[in-house]
Amino acid sequence: MTDTVSLQEIYAPIQNDLREVENILRSVINVDYVKLAELLDYSLSEGGKRIRPALVLLSGKFYHYDLRTLLPMAVAVELLHTATLIHDDAIDNSFVRRGRPTVNATWDNDKAILLGDYLFAKAEEFTARTENVRVIRLCAETLQIITSGELNQAFNAFNLNQSFEDYINRISSKTASLITATTESGAILSHAPEASIQILKSYGYNVGVAFQIIDDILDYAGTEEELGKPVGSDLIQGTLTLPAMLLLQKYPHGNPVKDYFSNPEKREKINEAIDMIRNSNIVEECYKIAFIYREKACLDLHNLPDKASRRSLYDLADFVVKRRI
Amino acid sequence: MTDTVSLQEIYAPIQNDLREVENILRSVINVDYVKLAELLDYSLSEGGKRIRPALVLLSGKFYHYDLRTLLPMAVAVELLHTATLIHDDAIDNSFVRRGRPTVNATWDNDKAILLGDYLFAKAEEFTARTENVRVIRLCAETLQIITSGELNQAFNAFNLNQSFEDYINRISSKTASLITATTESGAILSHAPEASIQILKSYGYNVGVAFQIIDDILDYAGTEEELGKPVGSDLIQGTLTLPAMLLLQKYPHGNPVKDYFSNPEKREKINEAIDMIRNSNIVEECYKIAFIYREKACLDLHNLPDKASRRSLYDLADFVVKRRI
Repeated sequence: MTDTVSLQEIYAPIQNDLREVENILRSVINVDYVKLAELLDYSLSEGGKRIRPALVLLSGKFYHYDLRTLLPMAVAVELLHTATLIHDDAIDNSFVRRGRPTVNATWDNDKAILLGDYLFAKAEEFTARTENVRVIRLCAETLQIITSGELNQAFNAFNLNQSFEDYINRISSKTASLITATTESGAILSHAPEASIQILKSYGYNVGVAFQIIDDILDYAGTEEELGKPVGSDLIQGTLTLPAMLLLQKYPHGNPVKDYFSNPEKREKINEAIDMIRNSNIVEECYKIAFIYREKACLDLHNLPDKASRRSLYDLADFVVKRRI
Repeated sequence: MTDTVSLQEIYAPIQNDLREVENILRSVINVDYVKLAELLDYSLSEGGKRIRPALVLLSGKFYHYDLRTLLPMAVAVELLHTATLIHDDAIDNSFVRRGRPTVNATWDNDKAILLGDYLFAKAEEFTARTENVRVIRLCAETLQIITSGELNQAFNAFNLNQSFEDYINRISSKTASLITATTESGAILSHAPEASIQILKSYGYNVGVAFQIIDDILDYAGTEEELGKPVGSDLIQGTLTLPAMLLLQKYPHGNPVKDYFSNPEKREKINEAIDMIRNSNIVEECYKIAFIYREKACLDLHNLPDKASRRSLYDLADFVVKRRI
């Protein structure tokens, strides 16, 4: 797995423009109200991989690369993503993300709710700057799909009766929908022909599903240092993800996931489940499924114009399934 | 105060179209995911006075009354309003609103956060249906102003050092901004000349401030039955509103608001403050200030075309300051 191309290389065709995204994000922090500025600074300046803005720009590279619309869109998806993370952390009572205390931990849930709301509105403002009604509607619909997926997850906490299809539907909503919106909007804003929009949309969707499967694998197979949060966080919340599902299939009786879900006091069952998953071929099986989505993502990319950003999309799909963070 | 025109009479020029707003709101409830449908039904079907959609429609009546854009806008502002109430209740830990258990009381805070997010997105979708980038940006900016005002309120909980100006700024943000957006968007979407847009915008702002001052008065002077929630709720949350501010001014020493803010265990101080406010001329003074905003709201309305909806706007400004609910 050492032959993975680095993010820096993948981002090469859009390097300068991504820097401009950072500048615009920093400008968002500059508000008069000091307390709000502090909250914004805390949540926006930290970084992250910026995969979503990169995907808007890379997807916009095939036809008319118009930064007047692509830059605000790239900023909008990062703001939207940040807002959903802040609300997620408040909902999950998570105290650490990317190795730092969350907004709800540093301030409280109330501030996290309001900051998330503010960022949703800011995202909407940046989306509106594209003056493209199709992408504005796309973003609005995407946020509905995301929250609907999050609601589904919340209502199904500690529910053992979930199928593989339920799982894929849920991660499609809560994660893949936004990544789909990044590639789709990049294509729309660059006036791509409809067939190319569909290719990039499908790329985004499949990369998004693969991305979340890897996230769910790392939650068991990663280290706390890599994850920047405790291992097994999903299970602690009662969220059934692919590795735990496969563990339930393999060991229908005397299963630690079952034991924990029926009695969340039994915290020792978490580590038991983590160990069982690590000492089985479950992680490998999950990777296989993620690889299938990576393949699907790239299936039709060859029909796009032969530009540097096409190579980047192949490499990014690969990066997503091989990443450790 | 018995000569106030009823809401039904005020809404007469737009009666049928308001019914259509209700129909569209009902259609929002129809989603496949049953749990989400339940949440939407609970929060949207209950009613309320629908002042915000009415203001969009009434403000749109002076020039080109185009329901293809005004109806989605009217729906959007009601959705936005509902979303902010749901998040407010979660933040304030309020268990009753309009005489009914809140979403956070009936489900929990997590569902309230996600439902609010969904409704923000739905509002954005309806705003996008206007295909008017100016109102789309206006809505996005309005939500930023609202959340910024709410943050201000949250950060200033139990803070005694707040000026009248701080108070007006805060209620301008958290309440008047959305009402301003209703009249402004109605004007924009009906292709009103810029001068008329400004008249309607100013009307919305001043009615909005008056509306919130009355809300803050009723929180002390109303009955639990009228309010549909406990009397003195603002004070309980540590929110300093106009009546409590005037009480602090009048009795700088041995003041129950001061006592309660310095020690929120002393819940008996709440009733003491309520009694003192009721048994003074504070309520009357607050009404006087609200009346000034009503006057300001109506100052330039005579420059608008002489239509039935102009009479409605005068009457609505009057209704707002005389309402008991």
